[in-house]
Amino acid sequence: MPLPDNLEAIRAKVSNWGRWGDDDQIGTANLLTSDVARRGAAAVRSGRQFSLALDLDAYGPQVGQPPRRMNAFLTMTTLNERDAHAPGMYAASDDLVTMSTCAGTHIDGLSHVTYDGLMYNGFPATDVTVAAGARTCGVETLPPIVTRGVLLDIAALKGVDRLDEVDPGYAITAADLDAAAEREGITVESGDAVLVRTGEMRHFKAGDRHRYALGDSYRFPGLSVHSVEWFFAHDVAAVFADTYAFESFPPPSPDWSDTLAVHMLHIRDMGLIQGQNWDLEELAVDCAADGHYDFLLVAAPEPITGATSAPVSPVAVK
Amino acid sequence: MPLPDNLEAIRAKVSNWGRWGDDDQIGTANLLTSDVARRGAAAVRSGRQFSLALDLDAYGPQVGQPPRRMNAFLTMTTLNERDAHAPGMYAASDDLVTMSTCAGTHIDGLSHVTYDGLMYNGFPATDVTVAAGARTCGVETLPPIVTRGVLLDIAALKGVDRLDEVDPGYAITAADLDAAAEREGITVESGDAVLVRTGEMRHFKAGDRHRYALGDSYRFPGLSVHSVEWFFAHDVAAVFADTYAFESFPPPSPDWSDTLAVHMLHIRDMGLIQGQNWDLEELAVDCAADGHYDFLLVAAPEPITGATSAPVSPVAVK
Amino acid sequence: MPLPDNLEAIRAKVSNWGRWGDDDQIGTANLLTSDVARRGAAAVRSGRQFSLALDLDAYGPQVGQPPRRMNAFLTMTTLNERDAHAPGMYAASDDLVTMSTCAGTHIDGLSHVTYDGLMYNGFPATDVTVAAGARTCGVETLPPIVTRGVLLDIAALKGVDRLDEVDPGYAITAADLDAAAEREGITVESGDAVLVRTGEMRHFKAGDRHRYALGDSYRFPGLSVHSVEWFFAHDVAAVFADTYAFESFPPPSPDWSDTLAVHMLHIRDMGLIQGQNWDLEELAVDCAADGHYDFLLVAAPEPITGATSAPVSPVAVK
Amino acid sequence: MPLPDNLEAIRAKVSNWGRWGDDDQIGTANLLTSDVARRGAAAVRSGRQFSLALDLDAYGPQVGQPPRRMNAFLTMTTLNERDAHAPGMYAASDDLVTMSTCAGTHIDGLSHVTYDGLMYNGFPATDVTVAAGARTCGVETLPPIVTRGVLLDIAALKGVDRLDEVDPGYAITAADLDAAAEREGITVESGDAVLVRTGEMRHFKAGDRHRYALGDSYRFPGLSVHSVEWFFAHDVAAVFADTYAFESFPPPSPDWSDTLAVHMLHIRDMGLIQGQNWDLEELAVDCAADGHYDFLLVAAPEPITGATSAPVSPVAVK
Repeated sequence: MPLPDNLEAIRAKVSNWGRWGDDDQIGTANLLTSDVARRGAAAVRSGRQFSLALDLDAYGPQVGQPPRRMNAFLTMTTLNERDAHAPGMYAASDDLVTMSTCAGTHIDGLSHVTYDGLMYNGFPATDVTVAAGARTCGVETLPPIVTRGVLLDIAALKGVDRLDEVDPGYAITAADLDAAAEREGITVESGDAVLVRTGEMRHFKAGDRHRYALGDSYRFPGLSVHSVEWFFAHDVAAVFADTYAFESFPPPSPDWSDTLAVHMLHIRDMGLIQGQNWDLEELAVDCAADGHYDFLLVAAPEPITGATSAPVSPVAVK
Repeated sequence: MPLPDNLEAIRAKVSNWGRWGDDDQIGTANLLTSDVARRGAAAVRSGRQFSLALDLDAYGPQVGQPPRRMNAFLTMTTLNERDAHAPGMYAASDDLVTMSTCAGTHIDGLSHVTYDGLMYNGFPATDVTVAAGARTCGVETLPPIVTRGVLLDIAALKGVDRLDEVDPGYAITAADLDAAAEREGITVESGDAVLVRTGEMRHFKAGDRHRYALGDSYRFPGLSVHSVEWFFAHDVAAVFADTYAFESFPPPSPDWSDTLAVHMLHIRDMGLIQGQNWDLEELAVDCAADGHYDFLLVAAPEPITGATSAPVSPVAVK
Repeated sequence: MPLPDNLEAIRAKVSNWGRWGDDDQIGTANLLTSDVARRGAAAVRSGRQFSLALDLDAYGPQVGQPPRRMNAFLTMTTLNERDAHAPGMYAASDDLVTMSTCAGTHIDGLSHVTYDGLMYNGFPATDVTVAAGARTCGVETLPPIVTRGVLLDIAALKGVDRLDEVDPGYAITAADLDAAAEREGITVESGDAVLVRTGEMRHFKAGDRHRYALGDSYRFPGLSVHSVEWFFAHDVAAVFADTYAFESFPPPSPDWSDTLAVHMLHIRDMGLIQGQNWDLEELAVDCAADGHYDFLLVAAPEPITGATSAPVSPVAVK
Repeated sequence: MPLPDNLEAIRAKVSNWGRWGDDDQIGTANLLTSDVARRGAAAVRSGRQFSLALDLDAYGPQVGQPPRRMNAFLTMTTLNERDAHAPGMYAASDDLVTMSTCAGTHIDGLSHVTYDGLMYNGFPATDVTVAAGARTCGVETLPPIVTRGVLLDIAALKGVDRLDEVDPGYAITAADLDAAAEREGITVESGDAVLVRTGEMRHFKAGDRHRYALGDSYRFPGLSVHSVEWFFAHDVAAVFADTYAFESFPPPSPDWSDTLAVHMLHIRDMGLIQGQNWDLEELAVDCAADGHYDFLLVAAPEPITGATSAPVSPVAVK
């Protein structure tokens, strides 16, 4: 089934298929060069650091939508168990975790979303298998992300704590991204990672997991079909958001022709590394305080072979 | 049961209990200051980066010893499933992972090892619980590690590919660490993370998982009771090894009085952040090639609430 | 801590400790003799059969109270996968289930409940371990239950569909059990299994899982401290209920001194085999229709080594 | 791809498609009528009972072939935990099991095996899904098996402890089944369940799990293409075996055209209920001792929604 015309027009502009070779599985992660890593390291000023990861436990963002996603569940497999070889003294504990790879703060693999039977770079959707997970574009193929990160604080741009105060389904546009960058004195460069802040994470941190995951009756702010070309034009390596769904909902068009279009165009066509449930709150406060919105970002996905998403524990160093 | 005299003497010298307050749960992670992070960033020269993580799958290091540790097991929970809201096109896949938190490349939490009923800083061993994991010193309390890493290549020091060529149960001493640092032109400083290379990982990468995990009839090289004071004296923030067991086996003393003493003294008494199954092979080749053995190290543990170990995907940037 | 006087008086009367030897781990399952099995088989009249098990899936009785109980979660590990040896044709599917052993229709092991540091027959509570589950009284020690089952329909006795219509926290007494048996023309004999019907399962089958599991603001009908001696006096082999909690709540006494007393006295002192979430609805309709309330009952617990409860798929044959 | 001619000829004779309606999902379980259940109950003589289930734990039959099958793994989710409502006394333990549904003693669902894109009764193989398991022919659709069981002891017929003593890949024929029935004085009737004993379980019970699962270099005895029509002709409700693979291997024909043909014809074409890893050792000893080879068999599969196999804890009552 072909894309609607409006999406097809965008797809034709932003596709990265073939750009890094016909067998490329990592998309914009190719932009993470040594030069880019050095630029990231050069962004360290004070050395203050911020973990952008949520704790992984039963109280994580998963509340049953979509079904079958599971928050982290921990059980002990040994508990203060003596070792037969250490006489009378040493005791150790081990544990086991079961979790959806996208349960908490995560990076989407390029195998996570397909359409029209194809994955990024033309790989068949059937490369994702029951027996082995993603045989192409699994997250274990991704390199660690080491680059300059820039925070584009859209909520702050609009003068609110959370973007849903402006509109529960606010669709972020290219103009918003430009305005945020200008306000912050940031020039986004090729290979940067952009962290887009809506403030939605405040719902989660206030304990309202359902509001965070499901929005205000399924309306939530986020990136939109009007921001896709911007990321291509700025040639960014990655985009991460402080929301559950990444893109806004309901979609911008009244005919819903652009539903979930951001996931489709970013992941499948651009091969853009993206991720969700990133906690940007403390970082945003610090950026507002010192006026610096760029930093070293290191985010190394857990290399789970064949997984379509990866848990990640990102750190920003200012 | 009291420690044997030889260990008690070391314990009295290296204990960090109370050093960062009576309620401290993170031990030497306190050394990871902003200054230390800046020193790490300043160690970036070329921008070349190295992932130090093993892939997480059924072919990981766990082979049944100790029992009940499980390599990562991935199942799909949705596979190219259409979304009810995206007309006819969008398809997404999700997956679920079950794994021991120490299955692959990991950081030990300070709750992982206890003796005499006590954990680091005097917390009771009973703070590790079935219902909630570690109520104190769980890995979610640890900050990301951002510091200068230094590779001490003991195998290279001895002129071998793998330290077991010298002795299958080679016990690394303070003198070895000094010699390696001198050979490499490294001065270890407070807050550094030390990566100790034995070359044992070559067994794993050559496909011999049993040899890697179980050694040569349970003999394997590693750190020893003769290296514990060295790490305290150099006030390092963390020590990571390219082995399964971290410390050498059998223990140095013929009466086995110092069995597993490194785990006991490092984790419980020093509160030293340590970890295993770190893949140092490519990094070591690069260090040997350019003569630089220090770099930016970023290793942010997955913050699994209550876990006694954490999967980590460390990255070195030279 | 000693039992309150009222419970201690009951305990002294109903204890089966030592009755079947000091090393006995199966309690009243000892009553399941060959004679009893023959009596069960002799109760078959029409041959009509009834499964008393709930389906095991995400929509089971577990709704988070108590915490960390998990409904069954199924994932496929192979899906219509071709076999390398069967040329081009054969395809097979396998799957994996994760579930609490007490998630659905189950039998409690005698290791499930302890008090005062002791399990049934004086085994220490510490025989339940992290590393191996229950080292004594695990469900794998239980034999299959093959006996005469009798349905005591307390809801029908009271002329209601569900006993909560009489009182949301109705506490079933010995007199109720006698009255039900008399109404049904049943004489309970040594070795029988008694199925106690409250009708609470109707909430579950009507789709109200929360009402079923949590009651009407934590009030639910069930067996009580006033029925414990009755089961001892009648020397039954097992008692199963169509409720989530087995016993009534809140407890009969205003000072709550008998809270959870049924579990304590049944499991730990009598060694009585009991279980919950048994679906008695269709069976009850059939018994009412033909006036026969006894039948062959076969309930063979899944022998999961060390488990403290066992999934069971019971069948009644009339 | 069409069946080879020899299998197509058998298929045409044994197919039960449409026999119980076009929407039937349970195949020969339709033969389990009330009359059959009564015949089963009437087979009870002494009341002696035998569990035919293996314990479910890490030492079960799964040794990695085929890949991704997992023996039962148990963890505690609460351990002697006090209840907030029971003052100072009551303590309970809960646990969680993860296992392949076919890990131990099990019944194959009719969704377990497909060929040519079709399942039993013509349902599409695609009815087995990642998101919901088997949407048709899941094991939750199966009724409990309550019938007369008959043991056909092929090892005893041949005068050996294990059939592999005759030939490691012994292929059981219709003539063998007839000879065993005649030797035992059994007339197999419509609706009976046949338990076929090879003695292979002795390898497992002697601790040789690899021999049991993998045979003698992948040669193991079992049913064959030469026994398929016999089960159809005798109109049995179910067939269960004391082996890992059910059918013999390598297949009888030198061209391997009948590889895995028993699974294909039994499950997909006959809709025959079958299962593996049934422990017949004690039962066989008892049958040999008293000369009675029939009994009441009750085997109620765990109704795991959508599962393609079901754990079962079968019991024979003589």
